Amino acid sequence: MSNNSLPTNAIEHLPSQNDGWYIRLVKVFPHHTDYSGVVWHGTYLTWMEEARVETLSLIGIEYADLVSSGYELPVVEMSIRYHKSVRMGMTVAVKTKMMATEGVKINWDYLITSPDGDELYVTAKVTLVAVDREKGKIMRRLPASVQDFLNRLAIMENQ
Amino acid sequence: MSNNSLPTNAIEHLPSQNDGWYIRLVKVFPHHTDYSGVVWHGTYLTWMEEARVETLSLIGIEYADLVSSGYELPVVEMSIRYHKSVRMGMTVAVKTKMMATEGVKINWDYLITSPDGDELYVTAKVTLVAVDREKGKIMRRLPASVQDFLNRLAIMENQ
Amino acid sequence: MSNNSLPTNAIEHLPSQNDGWYIRLVKVFPHHTDYSGVVWHGTYLTWMEEARVETLSLIGIEYADLVSSGYELPVVEMSIRYHKSVRMGMTVAVKTKMMATEGVKINWDYLITSPDGDELYVTAKVTLVAVDREKGKIMRRLPASVQDFLNRLAIMENQ
Amino acid sequence: MSNNSLPTNAIEHLPSQNDGWYIRLVKVFPHHTDYSGVVWHGTYLTWMEEARVETLSLIGIEYADLVSSGYELPVVEMSIRYHKSVRMGMTVAVKTKMMATEGVKINWDYLITSPDGDELYVTAKVTLVAVDREKGKIMRRLPASVQDFLNRLAIMENQ
Repeated sequence: MSNNSLPTNAIEHLPSQNDGWYIRLVKVFPHHTDYSGVVWHGTYLTWMEEARVETLSLIGIEYADLVSSGYELPVVEMSIRYHKSVRMGMTVAVKTKMMATEGVKINWDYLITSPDGDELYVTAKVTLVAVDREKGKIMRRLPASVQDFLNRLAIMENQ
Repeated sequence: MSNNSLPTNAIEHLPSQNDGWYIRLVKVFPHHTDYSGVVWHGTYLTWMEEARVETLSLIGIEYADLVSSGYELPVVEMSIRYHKSVRMGMTVAVKTKMMATEGVKINWDYLITSPDGDELYVTAKVTLVAVDREKGKIMRRLPASVQDFLNRLAIMENQ
Repeated sequence: MSNNSLPTNAIEHLPSQNDGWYIRLVKVFPHHTDYSGVVWHGTYLTWMEEARVETLSLIGIEYADLVSSGYELPVVEMSIRYHKSVRMGMTVAVKTKMMATEGVKINWDYLITSPDGDELYVTAKVTLVAVDREKGKIMRRLPASVQDFLNRLAIMENQ
Repeated sequence: MSNNSLPTNAIEHLPSQNDGWYIRLVKVFPHHTDYSGVVWHGTYLTWMEEARVETLSLIGIEYADLVSSGYELPVVEMSIRYHKSVRMGMTVAVKTKMMATEGVKINWDYLITSPDGDELYVTAKVTLVAVDREKGKIMRRLPASVQDFLNRLAIMENQ
């Protein structure tokens, strides 16, 4: 996939030996911080959402298109650990990997580290479900386009 | 007007000698601040939106209902001056008044001050227009429910 | 407790039969929502922080003063479940209770429900630790002012 | 200046015929939007701050270092016009240029457009001042490092 469709992002698909982890580098700006000079604990959720949406985009699922098609993938569960604080001006690597799905649940693992990987700042797990926007209900099975994405991803990781 | 319809708010309709200004008291929490220990300059826009929506609510216009009816009142213009910074833990008074309308433009003035009014932190002006959600276009005239609101407000201020 | 010290808030200390739960009513404004018309999943963290800071305030700990004294209570762990979405214009009850502490860890439970308690929207657990701001390190024991707060709270709940 | 120090950004210094405008491409994620499916009007302030901080960084002023040195450049005035809404999934170009300074005031112009420049979404003006953090006061003259930056910028634009 060419970079042309991703002009704003520093996401890269790591080589297969990295087991399917995607990385997005993020610089810490004033609006990310709170009074303590470090990143406010809720800010990480914006970075995790961005990494998730961009991971889907890399495989060919534009989230905005998915929504136009009548589907959503809302977060239904999240757990997060803050190991070490991140200061204004630093750049961090937001790493995410789509893990095994269970029915319509899609599980994502997260690591937020220094760009060289030596410092671990945050670990998290996020669970999404597929929702039919018109019915407002969780779907019994994933939308075809998302299931297709999962199949392609599985093929890539087995290569 | 009873407090039943405003359970979460500290808005009060000031006496008529205050010329139609509404006040909402807001306490500064950590998530409102940035590295400098004071309120991040964009945070004030959330407080101004809340004061605007609650002012409409006091007169009988629930913004969520307006949206369900197919209208929106997006911000099309804003100017803001930051006179003095506001620290975590402080409580401020967000004061707003709907000024004269020009066609479908609704102009609001803002003052953010200390609760006793002695300190002036922020002054701002915000302009809204009425938009037809389905057409995605600015309306030629205000929705009837909003025009009705304006008429009622004018009556109140003339009493 | 008089309302003078809590001018902006709808927090109430529930009767003792409610086992120490505090409640803060919050109305959903446009800036809380995302494209789907419901509250963005990260917004709840602002409400949970506000409820936590106000619970401390009710017992006599102003968080801004604690910070001025050289301490912080950062979030080190959080888990959250989103049971049902919350729409713009709705009012919800953010309920929190400080649970048993383990060393310098302070655990908080959260329920976000409809004001009548019939609908459950979100459940969460948040863990704070006490940090010495100058040393940038987790403290071995809670600051005296916070430990004093815990003792007072325990007495209140046992009454 | 090499790109190594700016791994996360799509900022480029446009050729001199572009008169000193810097561009940052930004993709619209769910957390940027509100109920209406378009970017919430306050979100643009985060993008404008990011473009400002990155423009300074390109010239050699790391904002976090400036703060460590005891200075700040807070926003004291802002005006913004919203010409056209921006939808989730779109990518926009946030363009900024530092204009003439007046004393310690630094004025920035903004244009937010489609990447090809054909669509104009937002125009804005932002004024910063230099503040001495310890004294908490506006400085009489710009910090030497910032004045040096202005001189270098003027040289670049005159080339």
